[in-house]
Amino acid sequence: MERLVLCIPNFSEGRRPKVIDAIVEEVRKVKEVRLLDVKADVNHNRVVVTFIGGPEAVKKAAFLSCAKATSLINMEEHHGEHPRIGATDVIPFIPVRNITLEECARLANDVAREIAEKLEIPVYLYEAAAKRPQMKRLPDVRKGQYEGLKQEISTPERKPDYGPSRMHPTAGATAVGARNFLIAFNVNLGTNDLKIAKRIANAIREARGGYRGVRAIGVMLDDRKVAQVSTMVDFVETPLYRVFETVKFEAARYGVNVIGSEVIGLTPAQALLDAADFYLRLEDLTPNQVLENNL
Amino acid sequence: MERLVLCIPNFSEGRRPKVIDAIVEEVRKVKEVRLLDVKADVNHNRVVVTFIGGPEAVKKAAFLSCAKATSLINMEEHHGEHPRIGATDVIPFIPVRNITLEECARLANDVAREIAEKLEIPVYLYEAAAKRPQMKRLPDVRKGQYEGLKQEISTPERKPDYGPSRMHPTAGATAVGARNFLIAFNVNLGTNDLKIAKRIANAIREARGGYRGVRAIGVMLDDRKVAQVSTMVDFVETPLYRVFETVKFEAARYGVNVIGSEVIGLTPAQALLDAADFYLRLEDLTPNQVLENNL
Repeated sequence: MERLVLCIPNFSEGRRPKVIDAIVEEVRKVKEVRLLDVKADVNHNRVVVTFIGGPEAVKKAAFLSCAKATSLINMEEHHGEHPRIGATDVIPFIPVRNITLEECARLANDVAREIAEKLEIPVYLYEAAAKRPQMKRLPDVRKGQYEGLKQEISTPERKPDYGPSRMHPTAGATAVGARNFLIAFNVNLGTNDLKIAKRIANAIREARGGYRGVRAIGVMLDDRKVAQVSTMVDFVETPLYRVFETVKFEAARYGVNVIGSEVIGLTPAQALLDAADFYLRLEDLTPNQVLENNL
Repeated sequence: MERLVLCIPNFSEGRRPKVIDAIVEEVRKVKEVRLLDVKADVNHNRVVVTFIGGPEAVKKAAFLSCAKATSLINMEEHHGEHPRIGATDVIPFIPVRNITLEECARLANDVAREIAEKLEIPVYLYEAAAKRPQMKRLPDVRKGQYEGLKQEISTPERKPDYGPSRMHPTAGATAVGARNFLIAFNVNLGTNDLKIAKRIANAIREARGGYRGVRAIGVMLDDRKVAQVSTMVDFVETPLYRVFETVKFEAARYGVNVIGSEVIGLTPAQALLDAADFYLRLEDLTPNQVLENNL
């Protein structure tokens, strides 16, 4: 069974196509890696690159693209709406198949060390790769952004995990981390009452005492006049079907039906296989019985 | 997205490990093919080999293993309980990913022609690859077995689709075909009343006017004292969840619950993804949103 890691680096360039192409080209160069998506945003002045492959190949592509961004992006001249600390702003490694979150955290460490040593960029480890609790959350790492971190990086509290305690003169700093996959999963309600969607969102989100690894808000789909519970689900912590069934019974309390759901972007197959397993009441299905899993 | 074909040739040898190993070795030789299973049965005197890969690689492994069986198995000396017509008795090609049943039928034609020309074995095409309606079903191709076919092969009715109208002196004849995947899917009932399982089986099986591509019988799991609806499902014709939900509502008519289900052996991931799609009421999920599908 092939080991698969997803890597979604964010670079601080969303406006110059030539720079974006040059960075993406470094990923393409690594043959064992599959490029899945490139999403540039002009207002954020930022590009999100998604690729997948084995641990070694993904590590290589992450470093090469970071090195290219370092040589082409000058943070002293960078402006955009999205918070950022460096040319290569953040590199998360996400376990997909036959690899643990802990192994991805070690991968993050390897890449962080390489970036620090070869490119002389200060690097912070976050989420499952974090070495210090106060650096676990990405917003904490990014506090004050490039400009603020430049002032505070020499203080003990903001000392990087690898590399010098000063910003790289043009590329700033970088955050490297490991985290579980988050599925953007939305559940549509048979009502146009936004209040109901918001109440259900509050019932399931971790921040309000709901399920671990679930973020949720209520939103209105104006074109369809449908209220929606919009979630981000760490399906390793809380299975997708549990989120769905909970929204269903909470909605029923208001006499409202669930009319559908949607996955925005990617989902690991396992999240859907778990749902099939639950609903079909499967006894003892092993992963290697699932044909494409055992290849 | 990688194209995947499953191939499950049956060879008329279940007793001599050296012969079985030599045949399987031919499959292993083809690097691009993944050997998934080898199941030899002493009473049947037969071995079932399961492998998967791209169309060209699978074709190659099918021919090589057939050629080896031709040189090592003498049908004049073969005895066993399972009906058979040749050393390589049957070679089915089954679409798994990014390939149609029609393409698998063409694959079957290519392999059938190669076996006929290079090994001088008469070959019959069956199921989706069949050229004549009376040869569509495998039992019709196998009628009279090796001994009977040897008498009748020179008649116009039993003329092979490729190769000579006489048996190969030691290897007999071979059936090559294309068919959809069949999932062995069993649903366990919260009752020890076998009659209920049989009635439900009759309600869903194609032969009794039920769903297309569904075979079903009622059986008793004596160790668990559980009646079971045991099915084989062509999930391209009838989705797994429909079989499950129908068993559930038919059982409810007798006040009986479904206590679980099981998949015996392999299932394509798609059958389970279809179930997740149904139960989560997903709107517009495309295959390339499912991570491992787009590799």
